[in-house]
Amino acid sequence: MRLTAVIMAGGVGERFWPKSRQSCPKQFLSLTSDGETMIQKTVKRLAPLVSQKDIYIITNEHYLSLVHEQLPDLPPENVIAEPCPRNTAPAIGLAASLIQKKYQDAVMFFLPSDHLIHHEKNYIDTLRKASQAALQDKNLITLGITPTYPETGYGYIKYQQNGAQDGVYPVECFVEKPDLQTAESYLKSGNYLWNSGMFIWKASSILHSIKKYMPELYQGLQIIADAYGTEEFHSVLNQKFPELPSESIDFGVMEKANHIFTIPGDFGWDDVGSWLALERINQTDENQNMLDGDILTIDSHNCTVAGNGRMIAMLGVQDLVIVDTDDALLICNKNQTQDIKKILAELKAEHKSELL
Amino acid sequence: MRLTAVIMAGGVGERFWPKSRQSCPKQFLSLTSDGETMIQKTVKRLAPLVSQKDIYIITNEHYLSLVHEQLPDLPPENVIAEPCPRNTAPAIGLAASLIQKKYQDAVMFFLPSDHLIHHEKNYIDTLRKASQAALQDKNLITLGITPTYPETGYGYIKYQQNGAQDGVYPVECFVEKPDLQTAESYLKSGNYLWNSGMFIWKASSILHSIKKYMPELYQGLQIIADAYGTEEFHSVLNQKFPELPSESIDFGVMEKANHIFTIPGDFGWDDVGSWLALERINQTDENQNMLDGDILTIDSHNCTVAGNGRMIAMLGVQDLVIVDTDDALLICNKNQTQDIKKILAELKAEHKSELL
Repeated sequence: MRLTAVIMAGGVGERFWPKSRQSCPKQFLSLTSDGETMIQKTVKRLAPLVSQKDIYIITNEHYLSLVHEQLPDLPPENVIAEPCPRNTAPAIGLAASLIQKKYQDAVMFFLPSDHLIHHEKNYIDTLRKASQAALQDKNLITLGITPTYPETGYGYIKYQQNGAQDGVYPVECFVEKPDLQTAESYLKSGNYLWNSGMFIWKASSILHSIKKYMPELYQGLQIIADAYGTEEFHSVLNQKFPELPSESIDFGVMEKANHIFTIPGDFGWDDVGSWLALERINQTDENQNMLDGDILTIDSHNCTVAGNGRMIAMLGVQDLVIVDTDDALLICNKNQTQDIKKILAELKAEHKSELL
Repeated sequence: MRLTAVIMAGGVGERFWPKSRQSCPKQFLSLTSDGETMIQKTVKRLAPLVSQKDIYIITNEHYLSLVHEQLPDLPPENVIAEPCPRNTAPAIGLAASLIQKKYQDAVMFFLPSDHLIHHEKNYIDTLRKASQAALQDKNLITLGITPTYPETGYGYIKYQQNGAQDGVYPVECFVEKPDLQTAESYLKSGNYLWNSGMFIWKASSILHSIKKYMPELYQGLQIIADAYGTEEFHSVLNQKFPELPSESIDFGVMEKANHIFTIPGDFGWDDVGSWLALERINQTDENQNMLDGDILTIDSHNCTVAGNGRMIAMLGVQDLVIVDTDDALLICNKNQTQDIKKILAELKAEHKSELL
C-alpha cells in the first residue's frame, strides 16, 4: 500500500522566543549547526520511505510562503492551510479524508514538524515496522519513546509488554503529564513510554475511528473532502473547517478507540522543547557552554548562547541562556526558560506586537 | 587674576567597553539620562567661574573632531592635540607654558574630563576658594575628596588638619593606593583625603616647580612655547613633545615640591570608574536594577543595563552588567567588571581591532 506522510506545521511555538516569532515559529528555524530548518530536516529524513509527492504539510495561511520557500520540491497542492487552528483531530481527519479521496486508501505517517531524530536509520526502520502493523484493519499505531529520565513535561503511554507481536505492543492507556514522583515510578516500572505525538495508520482506519468517536467531525470532513479537486475546495474549506470541533486526536480518538498499539522507539528523539535542548543537540565547549556565533567567554560556564552576527563577550557568568536577534535580546536564567511566555504576555500587554 | 581651565581629555578608558572604544572613550560618552557627554558636563559646570574662551582641552589627534563636535562654542585654537601620550606632567606643563605665553600669568584649574560632580555649587565655591589660595606665589593646590568608605582604588592625600588657613590645609604627603586594612585606618584617622587629580595653581607657580624638579621637561616646554602663535607651532609641537619625559605631575612635582595645599572637597564627586558607577549616578528601580533603554525585567534584580535601542528581556537573572552596542554585547558579572580589560586583551590577540 502507498506510504504517505502528513507533517503538522501550524504551531506558533513561544518557547524559542526571540528567535521564534509568530511570523516564523520554531519549525521554520534552524537550531542546528548545519543550517537546515526543523521542517526541512523532517521532510529530508523521510526520503528512504516516502517520496516528496506523497508528503503533505498542514499549516496555516500565515506560513504558506515559508513552507513553499523552505520546501520548494514539494508539490504546492500538498500544502494545506487551515483557516484557523482546530487542534490535531480536525487536521488529521482532513488529511486522511483528502488522501482517501485521492488514493482510496494509503498508510499515513502523521508527524510533528519540529522534532529532531538522531538515529535516522532506526527511525526509518521503526516507521517501516509501524506501517506493516498499520495494514491490519482499524489498527492505530502510536510511536512511544523509551524514557531515559523522569520527564514531567510529556504525556506517557502505558503498554502491555506481554502482548507483543513483532515488537508492536497493545496500548493499555494514555496518561497525562505526571508529577516527578509519578514520573519516577513510570520510569522504574518499564511499562511506560513517552508520548511522542507520532502516529501511523491507514486513512481508512483513522476515519473509521473518527466516524465512531467524533461523528460531527466526520460529517464536516466529508463535506470538505467532497469539494477536494474542485474549484470550490478553498471556499468550502474556509467555510466548513472553522465549524469543526476543536479537539486533540489523543482525547478525541486514541483514549477511546480499541486496536491501539505502540512501538517503543529508540532513535534519539528530541522534541527540542526549549532553549536548553540546544546543549543536547549541539556541541558544548570545555566549560559546558553551547556557543553559536561570535562569542568570547572568560570565566563563564554552563551557558547557552545563540548569537546573531554581532560579537558577544561574556565575563564571569554562568547558567544563562542568551539569544540575540536584530530587535530583541533575551538573557534568561537556565532554570526559568519555561517562563519565557511571561515575557510574551508582557509584550502583548504593552502592545509590542512587532516583537511577538 | 584671570581664571583659566585646562581639561584633560586624551584618555583611552577601557572600563566602559563596549560603549567606550579607542575611537570614542568615556569622556565623549553620555552615561547619564540627560544625554550630555562627560566632557560637555565638565565644561558646562565651569560656567559660573570660567568663560569658554579661557577653557583649554588637552587631547590627542584622534579625538580632535570629537572635541570640536561636542564643544562647538570653544575657540578651536584652545584644543591642543598631544602627538603622543606623555602622562600628566608634560600636558600640564604645555598648557601652563602656552597660557603664560598668552596672558603672562593666570590661575589654572587643571581638571579631568570624565568625572561627575553632584553638588555643582559646592564645587564652584571650592574652586573659587582654591583660586584665592593659588594667588600666593608658588602655591600648588590639590582638591582632596573627603572619603566616605575605605576605597582601595584611589591614591590618598595626608593633610595637616591643624595647619588650616581659611579651609586650605598643608599637605603632609601623597600615598599610593592602599590595601583594605590601610584604607580603613585612613578613613578612621580623618587625616586622609582621596586624591581626585584636580589641581589649582598659577601658571607661573607650576612652571617654577617644573623648572626646579623636572628641568629637562621645562627646557623642552620652552622651545614649544616659543613657537606658540607662529606657523611653526604644530611642527615644533609634533617634533619636540614626543621627546619630553613621560611622567605624572604627582610623581614629578607634587610629591617633591613645597607649598602643597589641599582643600577637602565635599561636592558629590564621582570618578565614574566602571559600569558599577551607573547605579550610583542614575535612578534604580524597586529591584535595584539600573535600566537605561527598552528593558523588560521579570524576576531580575541588581542588574545594570545600558541598552541600545533594541529591546532587552531579562528573566530570572541578577548581579549582571549588560551593555548593548551595534557590534558588541557585554554580559558581565558585577564582581568582575575590573576584568573587562581581559576581553580587550583577547580581542587584541584575535586582531579584532574594529571592536577595541
